[in-house]
Amino acid sequence: MSTLSLIFVGFGNVGQALARLLERKQTLLDEEYGFKTRIVGIATGRHGMALNPNGLPMEEVLASLKSGESLARFHNGPAVSDTFDFIRQSKADVMFENSPVNHQTGQPAADHLRTALESGMHAITANKGPVVHAFNELTALAKIQGKRFMFESAVMDGAPIFSLFRGPLPAIELKGFTGILNSCTNLLLGLMEEEKTFDEAVSYAQSIGITETNPSADIDGWDATIKVCALSTVIMGIPLKPDQVEREGIRGITPKMIQEARAAGERWKLVCSARYENKKFVGRVKPQRVRPTSPMFSVNGTSSFVQFETDVLPGLGILEGDPSPDTTAYGLLADLVNTVRGQ
Amino acid sequence: MSTLSLIFVGFGNVGQALARLLERKQTLLDEEYGFKTRIVGIATGRHGMALNPNGLPMEEVLASLKSGESLARFHNGPAVSDTFDFIRQSKADVMFENSPVNHQTGQPAADHLRTALESGMHAITANKGPVVHAFNELTALAKIQGKRFMFESAVMDGAPIFSLFRGPLPAIELKGFTGILNSCTNLLLGLMEEEKTFDEAVSYAQSIGITETNPSADIDGWDATIKVCALSTVIMGIPLKPDQVEREGIRGITPKMIQEARAAGERWKLVCSARYENKKFVGRVKPQRVRPTSPMFSVNGTSSFVQFETDVLPGLGILEGDPSPDTTAYGLLADLVNTVRGQ
Repeated sequence: MSTLSLIFVGFGNVGQALARLLERKQTLLDEEYGFKTRIVGIATGRHGMALNPNGLPMEEVLASLKSGESLARFHNGPAVSDTFDFIRQSKADVMFENSPVNHQTGQPAADHLRTALESGMHAITANKGPVVHAFNELTALAKIQGKRFMFESAVMDGAPIFSLFRGPLPAIELKGFTGILNSCTNLLLGLMEEEKTFDEAVSYAQSIGITETNPSADIDGWDATIKVCALSTVIMGIPLKPDQVEREGIRGITPKMIQEARAAGERWKLVCSARYENKKFVGRVKPQRVRPTSPMFSVNGTSSFVQFETDVLPGLGILEGDPSPDTTAYGLLADLVNTVRGQ
Repeated sequence: MSTLSLIFVGFGNVGQALARLLERKQTLLDEEYGFKTRIVGIATGRHGMALNPNGLPMEEVLASLKSGESLARFHNGPAVSDTFDFIRQSKADVMFENSPVNHQTGQPAADHLRTALESGMHAITANKGPVVHAFNELTALAKIQGKRFMFESAVMDGAPIFSLFRGPLPAIELKGFTGILNSCTNLLLGLMEEEKTFDEAVSYAQSIGITETNPSADIDGWDATIKVCALSTVIMGIPLKPDQVEREGIRGITPKMIQEARAAGERWKLVCSARYENKKFVGRVKPQRVRPTSPMFSVNGTSSFVQFETDVLPGLGILEGDPSPDTTAYGLLADLVNTVRGQ
């Protein structure tokens, strides 16, 4: 029975949800998958860092963060100069990287992941940035190191997308996909259908913590775009970059347009897609009116959906209803288990 | 590089589609998964049987079946007395069982599968009957024999359901599911929305070959019921039997009810579900009116859908759009690949 030592780089809602989930599932992980876990390090953006090779007292750590205190008092070891030094000195088995996303560069997450792999750790992230900007490099590095680079939660939270194509769908030819990949804009469009103005809708989304750190990332379609790139890169093998995607956000959608669609029994959705069109591979994020016959019609609130076009299953769709930090945390846990059992 | 010898018991639309799919994917299977296949036997209900350890000439076999001829002329080996003798004498590596479903007993499919496993073959089926009536027995037998009993296509054709819970969703607690699992009744209800009478709708479904051999199996909810049982048995570990499911078919749905629902912006669907209700596990197949906010609302024609309620992903749904015998054949192929690579 092995005990895996874990570190977290970035420890916001998702990281904290994962820590609680690991605690809740510890008996199951031990009995069904034959491993225990010990959190030996946490590096945060605003509350400092702490390493302790014997394991951090997680209940105290979580309480401490809740009251806004620094983690420094939990540190038990040599001084650590920065996050990279933290990763190297931790000597952990697995790093969970959940720092804020950077759509343009994927940094510093990509460098964190590289450092972890170079230091002989498995590297697991919910961050889309490094998947789009460094997938090939990190995957190759992981292979050389005999470790895994995993990122199930980067698209549609914990819903199984990447693992689906890694496992249950062998010998399939993926031709394209269509879906709703950004929770925030889907919520905003729904609120506008309830006759909220665009600004009221944005304020509400911010109040419940649904928008990305920068609301423009959602509203202008960047988050959706980078998810299209992540899916194209990983499951289609086509390394699309964000500036190669035809991108249009939802700022142009007026209350009048919403009402006209409603009167026609349709709904505006921020539709994401990628496929070959006249032999050219086209990634696209664009508001579209969808009919009740479309599976996208009933994707409400912060839910998301993707439908794959393949040579053998013409319309396989995955729906992720009511996501939360817990859902994202589950994707990270699934990555951990699949890493351990080599799936 | 190994060559697997395959036999087919039952060789209708699905078996024939699988034979063509194996032919089309042969290079891919060889290059990506390291195996070739050779079809060494086919046993049909109406066109006799043929065994040939060197492989059957499949193009000729398919043409022969198309013109309604017996397979006897392709037989090359000792006389075979019946299907069980056929299975035993074949000495194949894998049997595909696709005989007609029997909802009450799962026979003779269950006995075919048992014979194949006892004879040292992997046993793969698209047949729901043996999954419901003999899952535990056949799974145990497969383990003892060091072989696999696989049945991805038994529910929702080739869409990954069983493999999803075997692979990408580790450490998850499944609490229940809801969905539309019978293609035929979903098509019929849609046709009634287009103002066809019930009888006209049934005639149309029969004309395009969508109904089960006995239309009552669909209309009275038996097919849906047995799928609820298969899911409960396999992915929830609760061996529900068809007579333990609250079952109501669609015979009671009148044109007036359809119109009333439409006027209210709703649709009648044959909803399948299973979950604990007041500590009692309840499987249910029952026509229900669904709203546009339900993901079941936009499940059209012969498509199907299931949404899982779990402790970590509150609303994971799988949609299978536009199924065909090719879709079912893909599920059988996926089972074969996953058997070979041990997933």
